[in-house]
Amino acid sequence: MPLKALDYDSINENVKKTQYAVRGELYLRASELQKEGKKIIFTNVGNPHALGQKPLTFPRQVVALCQAPFLLDDPNVGLIFPADAIARAKHYLLLTSGGLGAYSDSRGLPGIRKEVAEFIGRRDGYPSDPELIFLTDGASKGVMQMLNTIIRGEGDGVLVPVPQYPLYSAAITLLGGTLVPYYLEETANWGLDVNDLQRSVSEARRKGITLRAMVIINPGNPTGQCLSQANLREILNFCYHENLVLLGDEVYQQNIYQDERPFISSRKVLLDMGPPISKEVQLISFHTVSKGYWGECGQRGGYFEMTNIPPETVDEIYKVSSISLSPNVPAQIFMGLMVNPPKPGDISYDQYVRESQGILESLRRRARLMTDGFNSCRNVVCNFTEGAMYSFPQIRLPPKAIEAAKRAGKVADVFYCLKLLEATGISTVPGSGFGQKEGVFHLRTTILPAEEDMPAIMESFKKFNVEFMEQYEDHRGYSRM
Amino acid sequence: MPLKALDYDSINENVKKTQYAVRGELYLRASELQKEGKKIIFTNVGNPHALGQKPLTFPRQVVALCQAPFLLDDPNVGLIFPADAIARAKHYLLLTSGGLGAYSDSRGLPGIRKEVAEFIGRRDGYPSDPELIFLTDGASKGVMQMLNTIIRGEGDGVLVPVPQYPLYSAAITLLGGTLVPYYLEETANWGLDVNDLQRSVSEARRKGITLRAMVIINPGNPTGQCLSQANLREILNFCYHENLVLLGDEVYQQNIYQDERPFISSRKVLLDMGPPISKEVQLISFHTVSKGYWGECGQRGGYFEMTNIPPETVDEIYKVSSISLSPNVPAQIFMGLMVNPPKPGDISYDQYVRESQGILESLRRRARLMTDGFNSCRNVVCNFTEGAMYSFPQIRLPPKAIEAAKRAGKVADVFYCLKLLEATGISTVPGSGFGQKEGVFHLRTTILPAEEDMPAIMESFKKFNVEFMEQYEDHRGYSRM
Repeated sequence: MPLKALDYDSINENVKKTQYAVRGELYLRASELQKEGKKIIFTNVGNPHALGQKPLTFPRQVVALCQAPFLLDDPNVGLIFPADAIARAKHYLLLTSGGLGAYSDSRGLPGIRKEVAEFIGRRDGYPSDPELIFLTDGASKGVMQMLNTIIRGEGDGVLVPVPQYPLYSAAITLLGGTLVPYYLEETANWGLDVNDLQRSVSEARRKGITLRAMVIINPGNPTGQCLSQANLREILNFCYHENLVLLGDEVYQQNIYQDERPFISSRKVLLDMGPPISKEVQLISFHTVSKGYWGECGQRGGYFEMTNIPPETVDEIYKVSSISLSPNVPAQIFMGLMVNPPKPGDISYDQYVRESQGILESLRRRARLMTDGFNSCRNVVCNFTEGAMYSFPQIRLPPKAIEAAKRAGKVADVFYCLKLLEATGISTVPGSGFGQKEGVFHLRTTILPAEEDMPAIMESFKKFNVEFMEQYEDHRGYSRM
Repeated sequence: MPLKALDYDSINENVKKTQYAVRGELYLRASELQKEGKKIIFTNVGNPHALGQKPLTFPRQVVALCQAPFLLDDPNVGLIFPADAIARAKHYLLLTSGGLGAYSDSRGLPGIRKEVAEFIGRRDGYPSDPELIFLTDGASKGVMQMLNTIIRGEGDGVLVPVPQYPLYSAAITLLGGTLVPYYLEETANWGLDVNDLQRSVSEARRKGITLRAMVIINPGNPTGQCLSQANLREILNFCYHENLVLLGDEVYQQNIYQDERPFISSRKVLLDMGPPISKEVQLISFHTVSKGYWGECGQRGGYFEMTNIPPETVDEIYKVSSISLSPNVPAQIFMGLMVNPPKPGDISYDQYVRESQGILESLRRRARLMTDGFNSCRNVVCNFTEGAMYSFPQIRLPPKAIEAAKRAGKVADVFYCLKLLEATGISTVPGSGFGQKEGVFHLRTTILPAEEDMPAIMESFKKFNVEFMEQYEDHRGYSRM
C-alpha cells in the first residue's frame, strides 16, 4: 500500500521538525492529569484570565455593545452600560464597514490603525503612519507573516536570542529557514553582549548562511530583562552594519516591574539616532492586546508597524494579508481601546485606572515574591523579573538527577519539570524548550497565579525541590557551582 | 548599497508570485474611487453585513453577554436580554477556561468541539469525534494549515477546480507547491467530468509532479453549482484510486437556492460508500461562521474535521496549531451557536427562525433576479446560482474589446470590469482571477446587495454592458457564439 499524503511518513518534514515547548510534553501531561481530576496550576503560558485575572470593565462594555448594536436603541441600555461606553461603541461601529460581522480591510480598520498611529506617535515623540500599521490576529500571526516574507530557504538565517520564546524557532523551522542563536548572559542579568552577537554572525557566515534579520524580545521572554537605551543603540548599530532587519517583539511593553529601566521602543531609539541609521535600518515592531494589564489573549488582537520598508514590499505584505481576508474585528476594537483608553473626566476613567493599576501593582509584587521564593530554594538561582510575565530560575541539577533523567529517556530539565508537575500540579515549561547553554538547566513559570495563592505555590515548589535534591544529591555533599 | 532583506528585490519569491484577485487590482481601484467620494457597491467578496444584512439577534446577544460576564449579576440584565440568551452565555462561559480573554486549547474549546461533532453526526447520520475537529480563525486558516502539512516542495501537486476560489492558488504558490488545474464544464452547469480529471492527472504526472490532494468547493465558488451524490461518489472513487487527500470546502453548505440538489457532505457520501473506500480515503472538510445566513465574516470562525487521518499526523497538526496558541474565542462561541441554534420552545426560537429564513429566502430570490438579469444582457450568459453566494456570468467580449484591452495592457476581463466599476460603481472580480478556459471571459459578483437595490443594480449593469458592446462590436454584425 503506498503512503497517503497525510500519513505521518509522508507529510511536510518541516512540520515534523517544528517544536513548540510551551504546549509540548509538559502541557500535554498536565492536560491528562487535569482530566484525571488533579488540580493543575497552568503557569506554562502567559494567560492571565485563565488564572483568575478579571478583564478590564470598560473595553468589555464597549465590545459587548458593538456585538449587540441593537441595544443602542434600547431605552434601558443606560441602566446597565455607562454613557461613555455607549458613545465609544457608536464611535467604533462607525469605523467598521458593517459592524463586527463584516470583513474589514485586510490591514485592519483604517480608523483603528489611525488610533494606533497616534498612540505610537505619543509614545515615541515621532509621528507614525497608519498605512504602515497592520492589525493582526495576535502578535504571533504578524511575526509569522514577516518571517515568511524574509525567509527564502534554508540558507537564510535569523538571529534569535537564546533563551527565546519558541514562536521564533517554531516559525523559522516551519518556514524552512535557519535559526542562528545568540546567547543572553544570565550572570549579566540576561544582558546582550554585542561581541557575542558578532561571534554568532561570523560562525553562521562560515557555514554559508545569509543573515537576514535579528529578533529582540523586550522585555524579555522567558528571561524578563528590560533592554537599556544604550543596549538598544548597540543593537541598531549592529543591524545597520550587518544589514539586518530588526524584528522587535515588544508585546510586554506595559509589563514593567522596576523603575530603573522603563520600556523604550526600538523605534524611538532608532529615530533618535538620526541619519543614516534612522533612515536605513528596517524595523518591524509587534504589539498585542494579550499582555500588559489587558491579558485579552483569547480575543487574538495585535499589530505590527513597519519602519523604513519600501512601499513595494508593503504592497506585497498587504497582498498576503488579503488571503486571510481580515483580522478578526472584535479584537481590532480591543486594540483601539488599548491605545485610546478612557481619559480623565470620562465617566469610566477612575474605574479603568483603579483596575489597571491594581493589576500592574499586583504583578510587580508577584514578580518580587516569585524571585525571592526561587532564590530561597536549594540549588536554584533566579534573576529578578524586570518586565514581561515570567520567572526563569536556573535549577542546578545534581549529576545523579541528570543520570536518572538519561535513564528515563528525558532531557534533565524535562525530567525535573515532570516530577514537579506530578508532585504539585504546577505546570511549567522546561528551559530546554527555550534553548539554554549546554549543561545548564532552567524552567519557565509565569508570575500570573493569583497573589493570594502565591505563597502556597512557592511553598509547594520549595518542598518538592528540597525532596528532589535530597533524593538525587550525592550524600558526600553536592555543592553549588 | 547591498539589498536589505525587506527590499522588494530581496524578499521571498513565493510571496511575490502569489496572486489574490478577490482583493486585487479591481478592489484597490474601487477603494481609491470610494476615497474620492464615489459610491461603490462592493460585490467583490462574500461579505453580507457590509451590504446591509443584519446579524442574527440571538447569537449576538449570547456573545455580548460572554464579553461582559459582569452583566450576568446585574439585576437589570433581564430588561434587555432574553432568559435563553442569558442561560446560553452561562453555558459557554463554563466551557471556557477563564472567559473570552483566556487562550483556549489550540484546537478550540473541547465543549464546543463536542457541539460541532454532534452537529456533524446529526447531519451525516454517522457519529463524529471531537478530537478530530479543530476550530480555526475562519475556514481559510484551516485550508492553509492543511496545505502546509501536505506540500513538501514544488514537486507536490494539488488538483484545484478551475474556475476556483483563489485562496487555493494563493496558498499553494505561497507554500511553494504546484497547482494542477481541472476544468469545470460551464455548458454542463459547471459539472465535473472525471475523464477530464484523469487527463489533468496524467498530464501532471508526465511533468514529474506527485499528486497529493484534490480540492472540491461544494457549493461552488465562484461557480455556484451543487455537486450531486453521484458526482461526489465518482470524486471519492477517483481519490481512492489516485491516492489523493480530498479537501472538501463546504463553507456554503447552508446556502442552497434550489430543491433538486440539496447539500450532501463529502463525509456522508464517503461513509455511505463502505469499505475499503470509507476506511481509506483521507478527507478534510471545512466550515465557517462567515457564510450561510450568519455571514459573520468579521468574527473569523471556522473548523476543519479530519476523516481517516492517522493519530500521529493529527498530533503534528495539533503541534502546529499550538504555535498560534488559540483560535479567537468569541468566534468559537459563534461556531457553537451555529451548530446548536435555539430549539422549538426556546424563547428566541421564533425570532431566530424568522430572521434566518428571511435571509435565506431573500438570497434565493436574489440568485434568481441576478441570473435572469445577466441572461437578459447582450453577449452575457449565466448559469443559475444553485448555491453559495456568487453569480459568474460569461461575458462574450467582441474582438475589438479584446484588442483595446491588449493596447491598455490589461487582460480583457479586467478591462471590462474596470470600465464597469468606473461607470457604475459595481466592484466585481474578473474571471481571470479564478482561472478560466483560454479565450473565455467572466466576472464574479456576489448576490448580496440588498434585495430592494437589486433591480437598479442590474439595470445599471445592463445599461453599461449595452454601451460597452455598442462601442466595441463590429458594426458589420457580431453574433453570439
